[in-house]
Amino acid sequence: MTPGIPKGTRDFGPAELYKRRYIFETIRKYFERYGYAPIETPSMENLETLLGKYGEEGDQLLFKVLNNGDFLSKVPPEILDSKDSKKATLHLSKRGLRYDLTIPFARYAVMHRHEINLPFKRYQIQPVWRADRPQKGRYQEFYQCDADVIGSESLQYEAECILLFDEVFHELGLKVDIRLNNRKLLTALCELIGASSLLSPITTAIDKLDKIGWNGVHNILLKENLGEDQISTIERYLKTDSLGEVAQLFQAQAVGSQGVEEIRQVLEYLEGKPLHNQLTFDPTLARGLSYYTGAILEVVSTQVEMGSIGGGGRYDDLTSLFGGERLGGMGISFGAERIYDIMEELGLLAHAELEPPVLVLTLDDQIHKYGFEILYHLRQHGIRADLHPAGARLKKQMKYANRLNSRFILILGSEEMENQTVSIKDMESGHQSTMKIDAAFKMIVESLKA
Amino acid sequence: MTPGIPKGTRDFGPAELYKRRYIFETIRKYFERYGYAPIETPSMENLETLLGKYGEEGDQLLFKVLNNGDFLSKVPPEILDSKDSKKATLHLSKRGLRYDLTIPFARYAVMHRHEINLPFKRYQIQPVWRADRPQKGRYQEFYQCDADVIGSESLQYEAECILLFDEVFHELGLKVDIRLNNRKLLTALCELIGASSLLSPITTAIDKLDKIGWNGVHNILLKENLGEDQISTIERYLKTDSLGEVAQLFQAQAVGSQGVEEIRQVLEYLEGKPLHNQLTFDPTLARGLSYYTGAILEVVSTQVEMGSIGGGGRYDDLTSLFGGERLGGMGISFGAERIYDIMEELGLLAHAELEPPVLVLTLDDQIHKYGFEILYHLRQHGIRADLHPAGARLKKQMKYANRLNSRFILILGSEEMENQTVSIKDMESGHQSTMKIDAAFKMIVESLKA
Repeated sequence: MTPGIPKGTRDFGPAELYKRRYIFETIRKYFERYGYAPIETPSMENLETLLGKYGEEGDQLLFKVLNNGDFLSKVPPEILDSKDSKKATLHLSKRGLRYDLTIPFARYAVMHRHEINLPFKRYQIQPVWRADRPQKGRYQEFYQCDADVIGSESLQYEAECILLFDEVFHELGLKVDIRLNNRKLLTALCELIGASSLLSPITTAIDKLDKIGWNGVHNILLKENLGEDQISTIERYLKTDSLGEVAQLFQAQAVGSQGVEEIRQVLEYLEGKPLHNQLTFDPTLARGLSYYTGAILEVVSTQVEMGSIGGGGRYDDLTSLFGGERLGGMGISFGAERIYDIMEELGLLAHAELEPPVLVLTLDDQIHKYGFEILYHLRQHGIRADLHPAGARLKKQMKYANRLNSRFILILGSEEMENQTVSIKDMESGHQSTMKIDAAFKMIVESLKA
Repeated sequence: MTPGIPKGTRDFGPAELYKRRYIFETIRKYFERYGYAPIETPSMENLETLLGKYGEEGDQLLFKVLNNGDFLSKVPPEILDSKDSKKATLHLSKRGLRYDLTIPFARYAVMHRHEINLPFKRYQIQPVWRADRPQKGRYQEFYQCDADVIGSESLQYEAECILLFDEVFHELGLKVDIRLNNRKLLTALCELIGASSLLSPITTAIDKLDKIGWNGVHNILLKENLGEDQISTIERYLKTDSLGEVAQLFQAQAVGSQGVEEIRQVLEYLEGKPLHNQLTFDPTLARGLSYYTGAILEVVSTQVEMGSIGGGGRYDDLTSLFGGERLGGMGISFGAERIYDIMEELGLLAHAELEPPVLVLTLDDQIHKYGFEILYHLRQHGIRADLHPAGARLKKQMKYANRLNSRFILILGSEEMENQTVSIKDMESGHQSTMKIDAAFKMIVESLKA
């Protein structure tokens, strides 16, 4: 019997965790510098909080937790008899695992409304679970990193989120394209072609442009019974790349002019603040079937082909779902798992690994307590350090040291103990020398700092 | 409809999270300094990994995850007909939520045996889930903080774990008693009274001494059919407090002498390394029905009454459960949730809160982009900063600032914008002054550093 873990889940060893921590801590640092405060919500939410919030597919992909005790007796007999699993679910399970961080945040904001100071800026870096079919790069448990501000319509937050993306990706050493659009332009487009009722399918079709090309989008639009005139206006919009042209196109649509004006305002906030990455106005950006109503953002790597590694936008209402007042806001999300994959591919994570501990080896058991003494003082100096257990031959100890990949190895025999010295081997230079204890500590501290 | 969260789970707001983070990061720092490397395991494990590892009660308290799809059709009809929930569980659920960090670590060590360098030192700080009845201080989702070394019998690790406890609790500002015993002494005790077969019930009884007193323990021992002679020897052992007396008591028991010698060795490793806290040899320490075979450790606060806030010990075998070779080792655990409660009670966590951001207020909408400019440069200086959205009267903005509790508030009007200055109010001193932008940044950076 070899033990395993559930499909789609992962163990993380030290090397991977140091790298993941580096990414999370970089994102966290900027979230906090930008005034977002952390919250954490439980892994399990009441099913009623989660169901119906992610569409029918989402309901299927929720992990449900089996009730404890004599759960079968709570299922109405006719449901058991008909073996209707779907109907049985609500009788067998009251709780589900968090599917994203947005719905729990909305629930949190309503539950804690009296403690919250509006505008409320929160960030959340926690795992979520989805019963998706596992495949390369898609996991059933993965982290999301979200920052949101609710309770203000100020466009300063759109500008701030662009700067956040720009600074984080720059610090991580990645080159990205930050794409900006505004949902109001899509609303105006549908208005312009007299198809306002088709906003949702048109948005979904445009969202697929990257994947299926204009011909594919064209076909979908035909199936929606749009005429060639209407479709060619859509094409004209999608092939624009200047805000001025879009403004002209929508000059008779109030909502269009408002979208253009919002983008202009955001750009004005950014004036005089040089970005490290490119910021592109992208009229083809649609962000799927989400709840966005204003600005939408998406970030893609310009170095590695890998879908979006960040996104977000402005929404009108996050909390009325849970009986709270309408609280609009603006939020973004970093795709940490993909960012990890890109950085690994580009070799940008090697430096994130923690320096292996300085290792102390002893030549025989009698010396071992002297070794522990040295170990103790190394750690008192704040140095990560370890001591090979007594009883192993030096050759075996050196093998251990090599696998540990320590920079400094201290070798102690009876001579060193007598003279209160250590023999120290710098594995980087190969240089070996014997020195007084304090000098050794000082040298190691200095070297590891450099 | 007011939304809620499942009983026994918690939301954490920013203030609480900063404090929790301070505790976790302190523990993490010392784990790493002592050469323990992080691993993380999935929240969900296969049920077969978890079942049968925590006793019958543990099996009951595991959270099981409902299978997806048409799960009812996979349950044998006779089980559905008889409504036998217990038997149905394994047909309805393949996965369970992590119940502790020890079993997942054992599973990890066997699965990744080829990547592991023995002795292997790992730590893990992750939540676990238990379907316990919620009550004050007991949650269904809580964090554990474990460090273990497997693959060596060296007593250096017992000494190291005592130093780890000592340093962490000292850095946290807590005074504790670190209690040390050795399971071999309990084995010797049972041998001495000719009741080796009763090791387990006698250990369990002794473990209750703190709660039920000697009379209670006495009664349990009587029920085990022990005679007064045997019981008085147990009493004699429990009322000892010197290692010398214990050594004398067990001079004819090889296992007893070994236990005494192990304790002496551990103390010898600690010689010349002054502890911040008291270390007590405590023959009454038993650590319940766990798998320990050598040293056992328990930490209690000497300031607040609150059960144990740390514990651990040496075990012979962690991994053969999963078909691996026997890998003994030594491990400890910090009771982070209780540590939090004690530190909160003692007022030791106030400093852990992050300084609120420096807040920029603008007197009217025309000034707001100047405010964003100042905000940008504050952040470029690494200062946590925020800007109140445009459009609110100063009075409302000041109310927001007060609730945010910022140390510095920058107030910008047209005069400031014209002169490229800021009016800055130090909320600590009440002092207000107007200065050039760069001087203000410098002053704030200096003040926040102090």
